[in-house]
Amino acid sequence: MPKTAGIILIGNEILSGKITDANAAYLCRELRALGVDVRRISVIPDEIDLIAREVATFSRDHDVVFTSGGVGPTHDDVTIEGVARAMDAKVVRHPLLVGILERHFGAQLNDAHLKMAEMPEGGQLVGHESVRFPTILMRNVYILPGVPEIFRRKFESIREQFRDQPIHLRNVFVAIGEGTLAEHLNGLLLAFPALLLGSYPEFSNPEYKVKVTLESRDQSYLEGALAEFLRRLPAEALVKVT
Amino acid sequence: MPKTAGIILIGNEILSGKITDANAAYLCRELRALGVDVRRISVIPDEIDLIAREVATFSRDHDVVFTSGGVGPTHDDVTIEGVARAMDAKVVRHPLLVGILERHFGAQLNDAHLKMAEMPEGGQLVGHESVRFPTILMRNVYILPGVPEIFRRKFESIREQFRDQPIHLRNVFVAIGEGTLAEHLNGLLLAFPALLLGSYPEFSNPEYKVKVTLESRDQSYLEGALAEFLRRLPAEALVKVT
Repeated sequence: MPKTAGIILIGNEILSGKITDANAAYLCRELRALGVDVRRISVIPDEIDLIAREVATFSRDHDVVFTSGGVGPTHDDVTIEGVARAMDAKVVRHPLLVGILERHFGAQLNDAHLKMAEMPEGGQLVGHESVRFPTILMRNVYILPGVPEIFRRKFESIREQFRDQPIHLRNVFVAIGEGTLAEHLNGLLLAFPALLLGSYPEFSNPEYKVKVTLESRDQSYLEGALAEFLRRLPAEALVKVT
Repeated sequence: MPKTAGIILIGNEILSGKITDANAAYLCRELRALGVDVRRISVIPDEIDLIAREVATFSRDHDVVFTSGGVGPTHDDVTIEGVARAMDAKVVRHPLLVGILERHFGAQLNDAHLKMAEMPEGGQLVGHESVRFPTILMRNVYILPGVPEIFRRKFESIREQFRDQPIHLRNVFVAIGEGTLAEHLNGLLLAFPALLLGSYPEFSNPEYKVKVTLESRDQSYLEGALAEFLRRLPAEALVKVT
């Protein structure tokens, strides 16, 4: 079975519309390219109990889980405590993280900074070959920060370990509307029931009316489905295949 | 108690990274401006059982729920069926929607188009004074389409009914890092425990290091908290207040 993933975004600032999250869309694209199936994204407030409940559920339901946000030194950074509670673990300081903070902050180092050395007991540090600050992994949960630049750098340092069997994709752009297209799609799915088939209308693009996506982990199954779809489609409906 | 809201985005295309959702961020901004507290966003695949479970949970946990996506005429448009299942209702065709589709498609009208006239039995149509196609409301669940332009037009046609007591906001931009700032924030929260207080570091802006947001539905409480925060803050740390 290919890997499944869940993403939990933690932050009042997203729910209150102060910032637009960029991490989930980035991670969905990256994981798809790696062949990982993202099954669910959840956005929740900076509240320990909610985080604990969501992390426990996501960790059980997915092969890997990524959290984004809530890992700084202030009062609203409660992700570590939430993940620890989800796993029934204590929060402890990791000496390697303390050392990094000591070197970085020197004489300015205070208790707030040291909060960033905390992790759930039993967790491990990963990916610190290529980034200054390692990523905390607790069982199958990767704890990433909300700041997009750092989120990306950290993910890049661990991305290869998630690589799975690729998902192949073909796009067919058509000049007919979804209503007319529907019967061709239904027919195609009867012949290729394992095909991942998407249909996305485009109202503002004069070139085509619908983008149809065909996907499979089996390249020859995909090409067979594509041929069948093109055979079913009225010739004048086809705009292009990519 | 002020209104709470939940948002469910339905679509494989978001989870697979093919499109970046714009509706949740838009709706979070709009609802915040109206004084509504968005408590949770969930992104799930086009699967009837998952939709039914999520809608049932969200409907129970929030005052209002908005779904986005999955309402067209093709095989992957299963939101109506999912919402109906969540509420233990049948799917029925609404004559008013059939009439709109008949006028729009004329002789081309087919069964796929007529799928767009379906709704959960017991639902109602709202907001059709100002848009061509009304919005389906099932109990406290508003069913909106995924296409951003239409999503916005439909929300605008119903937005005023969600207006609640406003949430007042002040932003304080500071030139000190979160680690040093943390104790001032903690002290402020001891004095103003009901304050909604956010702290957002900014690494790429040379003007300030952290944006602090203070929020309350009580304007005088907010102004009191702001005065207290400015009193606590070292004078040289303050960049600006907006």
